[in-house]
Amino acid sequence: MPEPVPEAVSATLTVERWTRGTLTHATDQIAEEMPVALVYHEVPHVVMLATPADLEDYAVGFTLSEGLVARADEIRGVEVIQGAASADVKITVAWERFTQLVQRRRNLAGRTGCGLCGAETAADAIRNPAPVPAGVSITAAELHAAIAQLSGRQPINARTGSVHAAAWVIPGAGIQVVREDVGRHNALDKTIGALSRAGSNFSAGYMLITSRASYEMVQKCATLGISLLVALSAPTAFAVRLARQSGLTLVAFARADQHVVYANPQRLK
Amino acid sequence: MPEPVPEAVSATLTVERWTRGTLTHATDQIAEEMPVALVYHEVPHVVMLATPADLEDYAVGFTLSEGLVARADEIRGVEVIQGAASADVKITVAWERFTQLVQRRRNLAGRTGCGLCGAETAADAIRNPAPVPAGVSITAAELHAAIAQLSGRQPINARTGSVHAAAWVIPGAGIQVVREDVGRHNALDKTIGALSRAGSNFSAGYMLITSRASYEMVQKCATLGISLLVALSAPTAFAVRLARQSGLTLVAFARADQHVVYANPQRLK
Repeated sequence: MPEPVPEAVSATLTVERWTRGTLTHATDQIAEEMPVALVYHEVPHVVMLATPADLEDYAVGFTLSEGLVARADEIRGVEVIQGAASADVKITVAWERFTQLVQRRRNLAGRTGCGLCGAETAADAIRNPAPVPAGVSITAAELHAAIAQLSGRQPINARTGSVHAAAWVIPGAGIQVVREDVGRHNALDKTIGALSRAGSNFSAGYMLITSRASYEMVQKCATLGISLLVALSAPTAFAVRLARQSGLTLVAFARADQHVVYANPQRLK
Repeated sequence: MPEPVPEAVSATLTVERWTRGTLTHATDQIAEEMPVALVYHEVPHVVMLATPADLEDYAVGFTLSEGLVARADEIRGVEVIQGAASADVKITVAWERFTQLVQRRRNLAGRTGCGLCGAETAADAIRNPAPVPAGVSITAAELHAAIAQLSGRQPINARTGSVHAAAWVIPGAGIQVVREDVGRHNALDKTIGALSRAGSNFSAGYMLITSRASYEMVQKCATLGISLLVALSAPTAFAVRLARQSGLTLVAFARADQHVVYANPQRLK
């Protein structure tokens, strides 16, 4: 079931609306965006702009999808400290993972990489996830039914019209979990985190995203062993190459009556 | 005039296309995406995934819009080193700016922030640019004419259907410069860089972007003293607050016959 939408995810603002030459004053519901810092054992790691909802899910999902831990049980605790205009999320991980994180940072020899987390050279940015498991297979009809179901499961987008969603779908059972965010990577991380916190099996379903499928979206899914990623919008060529290489089925330009398969079509029956 | 589109910006891939139950095999032109490292005096700063075109413009624009230098003439040189699947861009800046960059990093005390470049805590992520100058004022008709002109000036998007554009428009003279990228921040930085390299005056025109208007998009424009930002898609509430505070006029949901003004409407006649 969708969670209730927290008030903080949007703001009511007065605006001037021009339509075919006519000016009206109106109020709009506009999506919020807030700096969120992820802090591991007091060591700040990253600050992202995100929709201020489901931040525990976000922290767990990011930690897993960026490979900072190898398994969910290596995440020992998550605490959200909500400020007035920002949030800090404190994450405790298994001690050896934390020392690896610090060591990786120290290897950067006083220099700082960012953008792609922790990457210092362009070549460093490329992680090669292990091949994904066999996972699910679905029919075109099942896929199109899930897409038709999706818009009714996006409460923040219904209010603001401007946020992405990532939905987890189980073949035969429909959409199980949806998370939303102004950032598409954040929406995906939130859904991964929600699934992980619920103890879900990542080979039992597939991920449906409202956005484009970039390299990082495929990389995050493959890191979790998700075998099928469906995007409503376009892929990039770099994303397609990673999907082909890691065995992940990549579907994009998906609509309620059509889609395009870019990699590993065997999972589409 | 639009530049010729480099081959490297897209790839031709074979795909399976399903349309209303019918499968066809087809070839698609898909946007490329490549890790691009920005390196200041041999010190790596950030790795971004970007469309591999106009990387000199990108490096200049990012360096200015992120406030790493205060003026264009503090950028002394830009060299692009193109690899097979990635690119490094080496940037030389005025010595005092480089030492500030290194000092800012050193203050992070061996810790690493990323995501929002160099930000370590959520509160650090907020820069407050100086108020923007008076700049331009335009009529709704002029704005709608520029929007109508835009799609004909997006050659990479015409080929791939999946990249953002940022266009610089001079009232009365139409679109002057367009740059495209899979990332909306990158497209904006490329256009800022192209303008800066041409010696353009940032108070003589306005920026038109095909994407949403997030906080970072407003922050980058305000940092350059750009007084008017028009987005084809939605703003975030955080972006609207920064626009109102810095005096920047923010227009969003702009179409060929309508738009909504979210901040400082005085520049719309």
